[in-house]
Amino acid sequence: MSGQTRRDLLMMIGKAGGAMAMYQAMTTLGHAAETQFTGPPKLSGARKGASVLVLGGGLAGMLAAYELTKAGYKVQVLEYQDRPGGRNYSVRGGDKIVEVGGATQTVGYAPGNYLNPGPWRIPHHHRTLLHYCKAFGVELEPFIQMNHNAFVHRTDAFGGKPQRYKELAVDFKGHVSELLTKSLNAGALDTTVSKEDKEKLLVALREWGVLDKNMAYASNLPVSNQRGFDTAPGGGVGGAPTPSKVNNLPDILSSHVWTQMGFYMNYVMQTTMFQPKGGMDMIGKGFFKQLPKGMVRLNTKVTKIAQDDKGVTASWTDTKTGASGEAKADYCVCTIPASILAQTDIQISDAKKAAIKSLPYSGQVKIGLEMKRRFWEEDYSIYGGHSFTNQAISLISYPNYNFFKDGPSVLLGAFASGAGGYQLAGMTPEQRIEAALAQGSVFHPAEYRKEYMNGASVAWSRMPWILGCCATWTEQTRAEHYQNLVAMDDRIVLAGEHASYYGCWMEGALLSSIDAITRLHQKAQAA
Amino acid sequence: MSGQTRRDLLMMIGKAGGAMAMYQAMTTLGHAAETQFTGPPKLSGARKGASVLVLGGGLAGMLAAYELTKAGYKVQVLEYQDRPGGRNYSVRGGDKIVEVGGATQTVGYAPGNYLNPGPWRIPHHHRTLLHYCKAFGVELEPFIQMNHNAFVHRTDAFGGKPQRYKELAVDFKGHVSELLTKSLNAGALDTTVSKEDKEKLLVALREWGVLDKNMAYASNLPVSNQRGFDTAPGGGVGGAPTPSKVNNLPDILSSHVWTQMGFYMNYVMQTTMFQPKGGMDMIGKGFFKQLPKGMVRLNTKVTKIAQDDKGVTASWTDTKTGASGEAKADYCVCTIPASILAQTDIQISDAKKAAIKSLPYSGQVKIGLEMKRRFWEEDYSIYGGHSFTNQAISLISYPNYNFFKDGPSVLLGAFASGAGGYQLAGMTPEQRIEAALAQGSVFHPAEYRKEYMNGASVAWSRMPWILGCCATWTEQTRAEHYQNLVAMDDRIVLAGEHASYYGCWMEGALLSSIDAITRLHQKAQAA
Repeated sequence: MSGQTRRDLLMMIGKAGGAMAMYQAMTTLGHAAETQFTGPPKLSGARKGASVLVLGGGLAGMLAAYELTKAGYKVQVLEYQDRPGGRNYSVRGGDKIVEVGGATQTVGYAPGNYLNPGPWRIPHHHRTLLHYCKAFGVELEPFIQMNHNAFVHRTDAFGGKPQRYKELAVDFKGHVSELLTKSLNAGALDTTVSKEDKEKLLVALREWGVLDKNMAYASNLPVSNQRGFDTAPGGGVGGAPTPSKVNNLPDILSSHVWTQMGFYMNYVMQTTMFQPKGGMDMIGKGFFKQLPKGMVRLNTKVTKIAQDDKGVTASWTDTKTGASGEAKADYCVCTIPASILAQTDIQISDAKKAAIKSLPYSGQVKIGLEMKRRFWEEDYSIYGGHSFTNQAISLISYPNYNFFKDGPSVLLGAFASGAGGYQLAGMTPEQRIEAALAQGSVFHPAEYRKEYMNGASVAWSRMPWILGCCATWTEQTRAEHYQNLVAMDDRIVLAGEHASYYGCWMEGALLSSIDAITRLHQKAQAA
Repeated sequence: MSGQTRRDLLMMIGKAGGAMAMYQAMTTLGHAAETQFTGPPKLSGARKGASVLVLGGGLAGMLAAYELTKAGYKVQVLEYQDRPGGRNYSVRGGDKIVEVGGATQTVGYAPGNYLNPGPWRIPHHHRTLLHYCKAFGVELEPFIQMNHNAFVHRTDAFGGKPQRYKELAVDFKGHVSELLTKSLNAGALDTTVSKEDKEKLLVALREWGVLDKNMAYASNLPVSNQRGFDTAPGGGVGGAPTPSKVNNLPDILSSHVWTQMGFYMNYVMQTTMFQPKGGMDMIGKGFFKQLPKGMVRLNTKVTKIAQDDKGVTASWTDTKTGASGEAKADYCVCTIPASILAQTDIQISDAKKAAIKSLPYSGQVKIGLEMKRRFWEEDYSIYGGHSFTNQAISLISYPNYNFFKDGPSVLLGAFASGAGGYQLAGMTPEQRIEAALAQGSVFHPAEYRKEYMNGASVAWSRMPWILGCCATWTEQTRAEHYQNLVAMDDRIVLAGEHASYYGCWMEGALLSSIDAITRLHQKAQAA
């Protein structure tokens, strides 16, 4: 059934039987499990002259503006930056990156190359985002998330030499299979596993672990058929392959490869993933194009947000001209990140203020290194995906566009968070590049510095318009503050990834926005 | 180092130190492990007037023709079919498929849609094929092999209801982790695993298996973060997710999900994979374009291959005009599949004849079903990848081009081999479609028949020009016959996937061809 048909059916069920009936129907149709999105909001019939002020022109703000305009509201958007999109952002040649403290980078990438400093990958189940991408003509292409042939590196494993993911992962499951087989055959689990299941499990472990006839995980051709060969199969006279040597359990344990194996199994990291053709900001641009000209006022810093029983007033300053003014509307959707909102004069309840202040922002750092050629493809057969390390850069990630092409290409040289993020953010942009080159060289020692042309970094904690990457909730702050944060406060409602359970994802920003404007519309209609 | 530079270096090492030095250098450079390809053959300086007859215009034959022409040989190619490419083949709207026995299908696909009946995916380490694709301007795009969100189905598991791969795979590793943890904690492996490794392994299993604080695999939010939720995370007031329920061990064992988990770990199945934009036959067309006009004689059935101390003579009949003739050359590269060659009058040693006759050909069947819309994307969030079943069709596979597009799309409705292949091949084309619809409906019951428009099948055992899909070697036939098959027989050398250790892959055909023409050239130069 098409999206439209299902949505109509769900609306019908919802009207007839209420939310629980609708939820049950959604579950039956297999979608509640995957997304809370059931189609764009149906907000028609705004009261004549009703108006909404949207603060922040990122995805949450632009979606609110788009849907509220469609519903009949008069909408204005105020955006601090000189471009719409917020964290939906791509950095290209000629762009300037200015940090808190004044450090300024001018990006040197060749035309067509880019870095996505914020969001960079779209899971297949982020149906809200996928819906609007299609509706707004934003073309998507596969994002290669998992790459069996990329590297896993730890400074304290294998003498610091990176290993191919496939070799470690195959060895890990081989050893686990052999050990569990031994336990089963020794009767260690006879009180836990039935005789019938034990027989089945032994078959499963032999096949999955590629154990030999002695139920051992060993170096042989069937195992090499998974982890790779010493000499690959070929053609003609010398075509016969030779097996590779498996790693022993202690070495495999030192690699921590289960971290990557688990990472790839995260629901938000599973295949199939996508990215917009031409850079992540194609989405923000796609949203922006849908809004009437002049609806979004750029370069506009909101200095104060007040409300009374008549409406909402936002005071602003133009960051280019220094001019100031006020914007007024009946209601306000405020998508300003909590990190900035915590420092803004806003007339809301103490509970909501406390919620805003309870949210620390994470400090990711991304570094894009432009290389003369795609040596990871040409010399290493790595096409997209990530090589992981326990160094500050955390990973390097290979570009998912222009595969096989000659000429310069931008590699993600760091995606640091936590301690690594703060460490890199504390450096000058030049020092960051040097750190990325030094650390990334472990993967491609002969090429990394030799092929390097130029680089740019975005340290989110130093971006003046947000001072961090995403809101960081804990179980405790969720319990104490989440509902206070999202509750409508007279005429003001907050939206954005921070007002969702999908923190740090565009999907969270959009779902939050839909929920916020739906409640705003209900309140406005009831008034 | 670029492909060119590495190759030069290797050639230099090879000249200076011989084959073993070169092999060691290749290993050091990390390439012998991945491929036997070290760059296109360097065959310059053919004796003036030397000629080669190439039989078969598939990839092996066209590569031989291309490289031998470059080396200075006079080359002619005889091809049975009315198109070059052989099994490198795509079926499109308007094409006719004629089977042994006369059954004829006219394909009804919409413009732009296609079925790849033979090869359909290219591993990242098939460097020979990737090299020539780039050299000949064949554009490649990602082939989505692994899809966590596709289905696994067995008629005898879960009451015949397909399950999402991610749910089964996460549950499988969860149960395995819990059981091995129990064994370790009970001391069952204390004589096998050191105390230090035991501690590390317990951490690994808890993290990898997402075990709870009691070291149990249970239904909770961390586990749902991998296998999916009952209610997905959302935004605003109702954003909190609810966990999904894990399957118990007996159900997981009934699913045989380790088969798919192992499948994805096969070296030839690992990410990243590619396909040519526009259909697999873009490769054959790309090769064909490189050959001088008139070099390939189409519609030409080879009836006899003779040789003496002067040269090789192939007798042929034109299948369109009935005309017959002879082609002569100094040497012959014969890429005719063993299945056909076994029935051809050819003057070679008895050992080679025995080798040819020792090779049964597999009988794969592929069925391409054109559907009115991409319901697997719109209604199931499945973008590319495969859903597996233990029915004859074996799997259905979702197209990897035109993601998100409206309009008709061709789904691979069967990729049957073994018993399933012979079962489907024994049916009429109409019966095959009906079987594919009936069996594939388990995955998409509401949509499969409703959205079906038309279909086409290729049963390789019934294709008159090959009578099978690929040569099937066993360990025993390899030992007895392989070297006899590939050995040069006076003036004739065989090439093709059957003359390689990469059976059924285009890479095997190309590597075999490079090896064959390299030996042919050495012999011709020495003569």
